[in-house]
Amino acid sequence: MKIAILGATGAVGRQMVECIEEQNIPCDELKLLASARSVGVQIPFQGKNLTVEEACETSFEGMDIVLGAASNALAKKFAPYIVKAGAVFIDNSSAFRMDPEVPLVVPEINGEDAGNHKGIISNPNCSTIIACMAIAAIDKQFHITNMIASTYQAVSGAGKNGITELENQIANTDMTPSVFPYQIAYNCIPCIGSPSTDDYTTEEMKMENEGRKILHNHMNVTCTCVRVPVMRSHSVSISLQTEIPVTVQQATQAIAAFPNVQIKDDLSIGCYPMPLDTSNQDDVFVGRIRKDRVLENGISLFCCGDQIRKGAASNAVQIIKCL
Amino acid sequence: MKIAILGATGAVGRQMVECIEEQNIPCDELKLLASARSVGVQIPFQGKNLTVEEACETSFEGMDIVLGAASNALAKKFAPYIVKAGAVFIDNSSAFRMDPEVPLVVPEINGEDAGNHKGIISNPNCSTIIACMAIAAIDKQFHITNMIASTYQAVSGAGKNGITELENQIANTDMTPSVFPYQIAYNCIPCIGSPSTDDYTTEEMKMENEGRKILHNHMNVTCTCVRVPVMRSHSVSISLQTEIPVTVQQATQAIAAFPNVQIKDDLSIGCYPMPLDTSNQDDVFVGRIRKDRVLENGISLFCCGDQIRKGAASNAVQIIKCL
Repeated sequence: MKIAILGATGAVGRQMVECIEEQNIPCDELKLLASARSVGVQIPFQGKNLTVEEACETSFEGMDIVLGAASNALAKKFAPYIVKAGAVFIDNSSAFRMDPEVPLVVPEINGEDAGNHKGIISNPNCSTIIACMAIAAIDKQFHITNMIASTYQAVSGAGKNGITELENQIANTDMTPSVFPYQIAYNCIPCIGSPSTDDYTTEEMKMENEGRKILHNHMNVTCTCVRVPVMRSHSVSISLQTEIPVTVQQATQAIAAFPNVQIKDDLSIGCYPMPLDTSNQDDVFVGRIRKDRVLENGISLFCCGDQIRKGAASNAVQIIKCL
Repeated sequence: MKIAILGATGAVGRQMVECIEEQNIPCDELKLLASARSVGVQIPFQGKNLTVEEACETSFEGMDIVLGAASNALAKKFAPYIVKAGAVFIDNSSAFRMDPEVPLVVPEINGEDAGNHKGIISNPNCSTIIACMAIAAIDKQFHITNMIASTYQAVSGAGKNGITELENQIANTDMTPSVFPYQIAYNCIPCIGSPSTDDYTTEEMKMENEGRKILHNHMNVTCTCVRVPVMRSHSVSISLQTEIPVTVQQATQAIAAFPNVQIKDDLSIGCYPMPLDTSNQDDVFVGRIRKDRVLENGISLFCCGDQIRKGAASNAVQIIKCL
């Protein structure tokens, strides 16, 4: 299999290189593509150093898979050339996610959707992947109708420049915000994305729109997206309502049986999910599972997952296995 | 008026000294009380340095008001002596908050309750004060029946040692957790307080129990309390449901007309509440006011307030004015 990564020098692109190795994807050739200014950068893969090339319209010829870790604009620009070259484009941008012809896939949840692609498969939004991993097992058995979610999103969601900005502010070397609209060190910024439907943001509406497409349901979602000074794991506080009544024990058992999810849930021994603990690994941690005090047939929970890995790169690389 | 502060050397106690000056409380004598190890500490007040004395059973004689900024255990220990001395004990601990004989007061909301005291008035939990300031105007006009809240709580909620612990971890001088159960720098800890009803924590149940007592309502509350690496302002993401239908415009107008609350709500110009902006001042900021997508007659909002000031010291000093 010949694989190319478009946007190979960013936080997600570099993680994709690692994930291809970790997940033992049979890869005869790995082509690393980026913009002109990254040409010549060396990235290690399977014991060798690969050299980054400039992405151009002809870069994708002969490739079987192209993993996209670039902007919406670049994804839109190169998609026709990728499809024309006969490669499958697994794209991490939001450019094609809501296109009815494009599957939106979290392999553990709807991996079978990947087979219906017409050349493009989208990788969902990072918070949405992590939340859906936590709730999918409940949805399958008890049918989620409603969800209220508040996020605690890491700076890595804005790429490696987001991480650098928090590091610089913490080191007090440069307090000027440029990636984020305001200082993020010691702060919470309750706005991610741009204004969308009814004063929700684009990022907040992804939880409903992408969540429905992944779970194949029609849940209504109230989401509040908040950036917090955490490096690379997102957390989500969730209250959900199901059509079929569900007990805390049933919900916990369902989640525990779901692949690549770990239950961390025992207050008496200080066991709960935390973003530091989910960093640099692929599982989603779920805890604080309890009866919601407001919603009928309601469950509350808290979940965390690595934004660069399961929220982006690992999920995209897993999709290769679905094909 | 003669005022004593019990626990004068902590973050809240020191802020109380400043607030007495700022709020122009007519104070003929200010007595600063703490444990034996703080005796002799000098704290500036009205251009002079006051010397901290050791708190003992006879410390309260002749006082009109005693402001409590000490632990539950110390509040319980000294309360009988304060009451016997004829002083009014305005206590920031949680020791007496749910006692039916003790008013629980946020002056802007239920200041009139203060008059019913029998010697003790409780100052509410910090997150509860900040959330109630944000929602009280909606409750008065439209009657809140349900609330789902997720908090983003500052380290100052654990006192000055909480602030020092985050500072040390950020400076990398001491990463060992002692105030908090795990590292708080670059982390979120979804557990504040100890296990309580149905796997909620004591801190989470305060939002319902204290919220009802302050607002004089019977709302059900699902609360998830999360510690974040922020210094001294708490934030709360809230979805609420009202008995009487309320529009976003009506909710915004009601909140805007409420004293000591500021609306920060215009995504198009990057205007929303942030904990850095509410630090070191007394107002509660409210924004992201929008129609909840799940709850019938539902409103979602995000609010922030200084935990040491409106969440504790300023509110306690304001209560003096209610008497």
